[in-house]
Amino acid sequence: MKLWGGRFGTAGGRAAERFTASIGFDWRLYREDIEGSQAHVRMLAIQGIITREESDLMVAGLEEIRQDIERCQVEWRREDEDIHMNIERMLLAKVGPVAGKMHTARSRNDQVALDLRLFLRRRIDELATGVAHVQSALLAQAGDHIHTIMPGYTHLQVGQPVSLAHHLLAYFDMLERDQERLADCRRRTDVSPLGACALGGTSFPIDPEEVAAQLDFKGVFSNSIDAVSDRDFVVEFLASGSLVMVHLSRLAEELVLWSSQEFGFVELDEAWTGGSSIMPQKKNPDSLELVRGKTGRVIGHLTGMLTVLKGLPLAYNSDLQEDKEALFAACDTLEECLSAMAQIIATTIFCTERMARAAEKGYSTATELADFLVGQGLTFRDAHAMVGSLVALAESSGRSLDQLEKEELWGVSPLLGEECRRLLSVQAAVKQKRSRGGTGPTQVTQALAQAQLRLEQRVRST
Amino acid sequence: MKLWGGRFGTAGGRAAERFTASIGFDWRLYREDIEGSQAHVRMLAIQGIITREESDLMVAGLEEIRQDIERCQVEWRREDEDIHMNIERMLLAKVGPVAGKMHTARSRNDQVALDLRLFLRRRIDELATGVAHVQSALLAQAGDHIHTIMPGYTHLQVGQPVSLAHHLLAYFDMLERDQERLADCRRRTDVSPLGACALGGTSFPIDPEEVAAQLDFKGVFSNSIDAVSDRDFVVEFLASGSLVMVHLSRLAEELVLWSSQEFGFVELDEAWTGGSSIMPQKKNPDSLELVRGKTGRVIGHLTGMLTVLKGLPLAYNSDLQEDKEALFAACDTLEECLSAMAQIIATTIFCTERMARAAEKGYSTATELADFLVGQGLTFRDAHAMVGSLVALAESSGRSLDQLEKEELWGVSPLLGEECRRLLSVQAAVKQKRSRGGTGPTQVTQALAQAQLRLEQRVRST
Amino acid sequence: MKLWGGRFGTAGGRAAERFTASIGFDWRLYREDIEGSQAHVRMLAIQGIITREESDLMVAGLEEIRQDIERCQVEWRREDEDIHMNIERMLLAKVGPVAGKMHTARSRNDQVALDLRLFLRRRIDELATGVAHVQSALLAQAGDHIHTIMPGYTHLQVGQPVSLAHHLLAYFDMLERDQERLADCRRRTDVSPLGACALGGTSFPIDPEEVAAQLDFKGVFSNSIDAVSDRDFVVEFLASGSLVMVHLSRLAEELVLWSSQEFGFVELDEAWTGGSSIMPQKKNPDSLELVRGKTGRVIGHLTGMLTVLKGLPLAYNSDLQEDKEALFAACDTLEECLSAMAQIIATTIFCTERMARAAEKGYSTATELADFLVGQGLTFRDAHAMVGSLVALAESSGRSLDQLEKEELWGVSPLLGEECRRLLSVQAAVKQKRSRGGTGPTQVTQALAQAQLRLEQRVRST
Amino acid sequence: MKLWGGRFGTAGGRAAERFTASIGFDWRLYREDIEGSQAHVRMLAIQGIITREESDLMVAGLEEIRQDIERCQVEWRREDEDIHMNIERMLLAKVGPVAGKMHTARSRNDQVALDLRLFLRRRIDELATGVAHVQSALLAQAGDHIHTIMPGYTHLQVGQPVSLAHHLLAYFDMLERDQERLADCRRRTDVSPLGACALGGTSFPIDPEEVAAQLDFKGVFSNSIDAVSDRDFVVEFLASGSLVMVHLSRLAEELVLWSSQEFGFVELDEAWTGGSSIMPQKKNPDSLELVRGKTGRVIGHLTGMLTVLKGLPLAYNSDLQEDKEALFAACDTLEECLSAMAQIIATTIFCTERMARAAEKGYSTATELADFLVGQGLTFRDAHAMVGSLVALAESSGRSLDQLEKEELWGVSPLLGEECRRLLSVQAAVKQKRSRGGTGPTQVTQALAQAQLRLEQRVRST
Repeated sequence: MKLWGGRFGTAGGRAAERFTASIGFDWRLYREDIEGSQAHVRMLAIQGIITREESDLMVAGLEEIRQDIERCQVEWRREDEDIHMNIERMLLAKVGPVAGKMHTARSRNDQVALDLRLFLRRRIDELATGVAHVQSALLAQAGDHIHTIMPGYTHLQVGQPVSLAHHLLAYFDMLERDQERLADCRRRTDVSPLGACALGGTSFPIDPEEVAAQLDFKGVFSNSIDAVSDRDFVVEFLASGSLVMVHLSRLAEELVLWSSQEFGFVELDEAWTGGSSIMPQKKNPDSLELVRGKTGRVIGHLTGMLTVLKGLPLAYNSDLQEDKEALFAACDTLEECLSAMAQIIATTIFCTERMARAAEKGYSTATELADFLVGQGLTFRDAHAMVGSLVALAESSGRSLDQLEKEELWGVSPLLGEECRRLLSVQAAVKQKRSRGGTGPTQVTQALAQAQLRLEQRVRST
Repeated sequence: MKLWGGRFGTAGGRAAERFTASIGFDWRLYREDIEGSQAHVRMLAIQGIITREESDLMVAGLEEIRQDIERCQVEWRREDEDIHMNIERMLLAKVGPVAGKMHTARSRNDQVALDLRLFLRRRIDELATGVAHVQSALLAQAGDHIHTIMPGYTHLQVGQPVSLAHHLLAYFDMLERDQERLADCRRRTDVSPLGACALGGTSFPIDPEEVAAQLDFKGVFSNSIDAVSDRDFVVEFLASGSLVMVHLSRLAEELVLWSSQEFGFVELDEAWTGGSSIMPQKKNPDSLELVRGKTGRVIGHLTGMLTVLKGLPLAYNSDLQEDKEALFAACDTLEECLSAMAQIIATTIFCTERMARAAEKGYSTATELADFLVGQGLTFRDAHAMVGSLVALAESSGRSLDQLEKEELWGVSPLLGEECRRLLSVQAAVKQKRSRGGTGPTQVTQALAQAQLRLEQRVRST
Repeated sequence: MKLWGGRFGTAGGRAAERFTASIGFDWRLYREDIEGSQAHVRMLAIQGIITREESDLMVAGLEEIRQDIERCQVEWRREDEDIHMNIERMLLAKVGPVAGKMHTARSRNDQVALDLRLFLRRRIDELATGVAHVQSALLAQAGDHIHTIMPGYTHLQVGQPVSLAHHLLAYFDMLERDQERLADCRRRTDVSPLGACALGGTSFPIDPEEVAAQLDFKGVFSNSIDAVSDRDFVVEFLASGSLVMVHLSRLAEELVLWSSQEFGFVELDEAWTGGSSIMPQKKNPDSLELVRGKTGRVIGHLTGMLTVLKGLPLAYNSDLQEDKEALFAACDTLEECLSAMAQIIATTIFCTERMARAAEKGYSTATELADFLVGQGLTFRDAHAMVGSLVALAESSGRSLDQLEKEELWGVSPLLGEECRRLLSVQAAVKQKRSRGGTGPTQVTQALAQAQLRLEQRVRST
Repeated sequence: MKLWGGRFGTAGGRAAERFTASIGFDWRLYREDIEGSQAHVRMLAIQGIITREESDLMVAGLEEIRQDIERCQVEWRREDEDIHMNIERMLLAKVGPVAGKMHTARSRNDQVALDLRLFLRRRIDELATGVAHVQSALLAQAGDHIHTIMPGYTHLQVGQPVSLAHHLLAYFDMLERDQERLADCRRRTDVSPLGACALGGTSFPIDPEEVAAQLDFKGVFSNSIDAVSDRDFVVEFLASGSLVMVHLSRLAEELVLWSSQEFGFVELDEAWTGGSSIMPQKKNPDSLELVRGKTGRVIGHLTGMLTVLKGLPLAYNSDLQEDKEALFAACDTLEECLSAMAQIIATTIFCTERMARAAEKGYSTATELADFLVGQGLTFRDAHAMVGSLVALAESSGRSLDQLEKEELWGVSPLLGEECRRLLSVQAAVKQKRSRGGTGPTQVTQALAQAQLRLEQRVRST
């Protein structure tokens, strides 16, 4: 059933058909396509373009087709090219020639844009839940580890001791921004393009707002040419999704590092690790590496989509058909990575002693000493230099700062009396960090409470 | 003046210095760096960490440095590595050792994040204006061309006649979404990271909210580790900027096509075209091609930045230093492309007769005939097939649809009487498209008025 | 059949299994996996590590498995994770416990690298043939169009008249470079990694060269750590493939332009065009647009793979599992695009009169006049300026250059006598371009003959 | 001095000039531009198109201009747009109107392609030397560390003990492939496009082969249209360069990891590390992080260039002007990263005891035990399972494998007698790996010798 059968003298070649048919992947839009068609014919009836009976017949027929599809009782045909034509063919078989009225005042150009927007809107909602699950897992672990001390790194060098909860909450904040970006993207996706027809609207007295209302869209397109050629929402989603993946990849990288023998900060649940076909002792963080690797893939899809769109004249061009596989792949990847990460975080055991010991080893409290000297009236720059020389002294003799002799401290500055020693414990150093958003236990406890509140609100509002 | 002079026995090698120094590009942040430092020392004084006199001295010294820089009376030194240390060195020269107090309760990690956010916030505002200028140029042209008829293309084949104003307004809508995305990105950029210090906050009784208020930030960081390692706002900006460029590239492509001899739809202003060093007759749309080409560059910067961030452990790593050149280049590229496009659009002359003639040639009103038949009770599919055979008939004899004989029309369907001929004029076809968001003159006039209103509101609100 | 069953106390969770299993896509390597295992066990027997009987048994069992797979008589199990373990499980069922010896002195790390190299080597050969088919189609058309004159464009403005054959041969040359790049990439792919084992080689007296010889590899790995972590060949292939796609996209863009009503230079075969669901007159260059769009996708895969590899420590990491889907997708895309393009080129009809007329319209011979003046002793710059003013004169009065009056020519320079008029025909202009590699008929005829020769040699050598 | 002054009535606007002028960056091609012009005018004289005297005058004038430029005694003018016109203007000032003959039978289209190819050819040679320096530094360290044992990692988990030299030689091999790819790319860059003129060749009796010979090109273009629109060599270089960066980034990542307190495998030279502005104890691997970060930038340039080229019609379009900044940036980045890495590798101290101890800790010799059991007749799968249970036993009691009791070994298999204990030392395990390309000392010594030979040959041949 080629729709343009009227014009073409010869049948399209099989090779061309194979090359251009999209049913191999766009069948995934069947739910949206049917839902959209139902709304469309209902509107056509309301507007008097078709009769109520015709509409009812088609709506019911489409409903049956949906069930057939979900029971795997349909045959997708490549000669029908895409999901739209396959379903129209099925409807023809169900309800007879009236099926030909379904496409009145509609083009596949606005139809596919509609399907894609409905699809992405649904997937964004699911992904927002997926992000929330990761956030929830982070909060649960953070709640257990407010007082767990770990080395805070910059440049992968021990910087200052921090609370593990504080570290985990950093990821909560990243994902919180992801939630916002996904919501912004959802808002711009949530606009109905139906009624733009091929590119210029139609002479039929349609009501695009009625369709939009039925499909629960917040907005309706305002320019028909833009409506059929806009794929910004796909790009914006891929960009937002790339950032989600970047965040997951950073956490994955850390957990890979931490599960190494050398760090030994975490014990991953065996379910999420893999063995070696040759080395019997191995317990590999496979799933985390996959998350890290899949990040590259999503970034690649983003690049690809931008390249597809660059320099494309208006309005619809078949290049846009290339939006689907990338979008589907990105959605699936995100979903499975979010799900994996939520479970991995939830099941990871933090080796708190190893963490604390590592924090103690790295001269991580040197900043405290510098700050103390500033409190005594020195400029920060001078204090920094003095403590630097103390670190050099300690390091050269393999000692920690608090193993330095009284005289050695005095030698650098008479201000460094015994009372400064208490600053050198990692516990004290963390407690000291009382500034807003800092790693002190009071601040972290507060931040955790707020995060929990925000997450609950988010979950409740969806 | 290496700040960590206290610890290092040997001087850093020149080669290493050359490799790691960022002053060659980050000097562009001088304004933000100074502004941020002034706010910081003022806060330190308010909180009693330094005295009011010390603060005043430093604020005044920094002010002088700003003026020195703007008068090109400073020397940037590579051995001072970056903008922060260069300015601190200058301040030391101006106000003496008290300059050493400027860095109290601050790290370059939060300082550079602050500078970058201030910088981007300013540039986003400028770019929003740049986008508005392009929008304004589009509206001006659209206002002149509501009744100009051109071929609406899909697949670069003539589809249906549309109003040129309608076509131009499609770009207005794209840029309107860009405005929203830039605003969303601005909102997430508009968060002060100062007070996060190295990564964990500080034991000094600082007030990050005071600094944020002074610098007119809407928000303050909530997690110090995230605050210093977050570059989401850079990625989000590059993604939003890539979409702006994609839109400009689509318009550039169309104008390049339209300025070809074969289309002949526009006459570009000579100022924005170039000649050939060998072919005396050439008038090349150089600027438009550059806009199209530069799109690739911005997309490349986005890819690059995502790749930089992928798999990076917390908190600050020097990889992040690579954010600046890409961001600067993208901002500059966007600014100059927006400016060029605004001027090109404003000065382009549309060859309305060529456009109208092209619209008439392409059987662009065939859809009207099909819609007419549907109005007579046919299903759309049947109508589509009938009109398809009429087009084939006309095409084979080199005629337009309205040159078909009465008998030929009848031969296909007795419904196709004389009255259907009036549908075949492009003017009538455009007028018929009365649906919401369609290309009919009433709709376009309305859309234009709304667009003008929105643009005015936007301009007024900034 | 988890191989590391010995160590893990608990069974891996289903979710993790779903996330990490690769059998959903790496089953496509079955042929290479079996071939590689057969070579491996044969070598083990030759080296006396297993017996000849054991080897024979396994080789025969693997052969049966291959046939089972090709007859779709196997069940792929996700709990067996990947193609390697699925086949090992099948072998166990066929030949009993001896199957456990197949993995002696081998790891999945070198095994999967082997499979991937065998796979890519085969696909490169197929793609080289695909490229040759496009080249062949270009040569066939070029042979028919040595004397067809078309406008040569720069900046999409008419520059100088050229031979259509010359234009088509430009694409031949691009694809010729692609052939070279694919051959270079094949050479670096054609290196056996088997024998690297997990990462360090083995204590078994294996013979990696014997395996390589059996599998017809030109080279053998020289460093076992590199052998298991190298995916350069994947990146290099994706880069070479991206360039192939860029070339196809440029041709596709031109054919899309040329099939527009405005250019009208080509008539595409209907089989490779599509209709509209709403506009009965449309004949859209769908396939060409898809080729253009798919280019973005392949570029995206390249970006993705580079991002995956960036910053990955040695040796094997599961991130590398992400190489396969991108590689498979790129190979398939290239294959189908090459096949489509070969057929599209072969079936396209060039509208030679439209082309010639377009060439005549665009003052395309102005350069000839300038060159003529140089022959008379003027500097090129002066000549360029004079002819420029003639073009301006002609254009302002809507005439072509040869419609200028004698006096008008004289007015610009007395050197411009009647004899210069003959230079103004596009035929003469093309003929004049006698320089090496130029568009003159002698040069093009020669270039075509050489291209044919090169293509034949290439085809013969494979 | 606008070259197309003859035609344009009005002067180009300043804004447009600013937007399109490339002199701000293409001045870097001055050397190649002059060299190319000298070869061109010499050829023109040889062919009798200009006189010998004219040629000599221009050659000498160009020589002076080169010296002026190198002494910074020239003024680059934006109104002259690009390097070509700036130099032509300077020549006009030096030698008078004859300068107008320099552009005879040449266009900026083939001129800029020539300049870019000359430039890249030179930079590839320099980069090949840069790569060789890194390789040389690797060999020097490898020579010192054939017997240094370190943990070989897969999935960042200790896999098997390997020789540090072997690990370093893996990088040598990666860079060896890079050398090959750069050489392949150089070969395809080393083709002269001069003589293609605007796009179709010329009617002047030029000799492109003479120009090519003078400029030491191995090849000459065969199709003039391709010659001016081909930028494959830029893409191929960026792809090859991206792989170089990927390799450097992997080594950088490892050195960052190894310089962490937790690994402690290396001591970086202080010159190549940085301090903290706030934490006095810090010694950050800044330079390595920059190398890792800059990898993203080069990948971004590759993506950008591919996006620029996608869908571009023939022949020259101004989009191609965007090739230069990306190419320059990539060349510079590669050069400085290679130089930094060579020095970092050369000055890094490997903490051999820490490495050995780490290798001993990770059950890294478990594979040896499995292989031993296979030697006793077990299938590998059974052996793997047995050893797996031994590891579990040892791990649960915090012991290493060789701390297991005789009875415990026997309990798993009577084959595990006392003699198997000697397999458990990391030294023995490494020595056992005698297979080709493996990590055994004999193999590594051999591989090192071959690598040295190859490097010397390479250096000698350039």
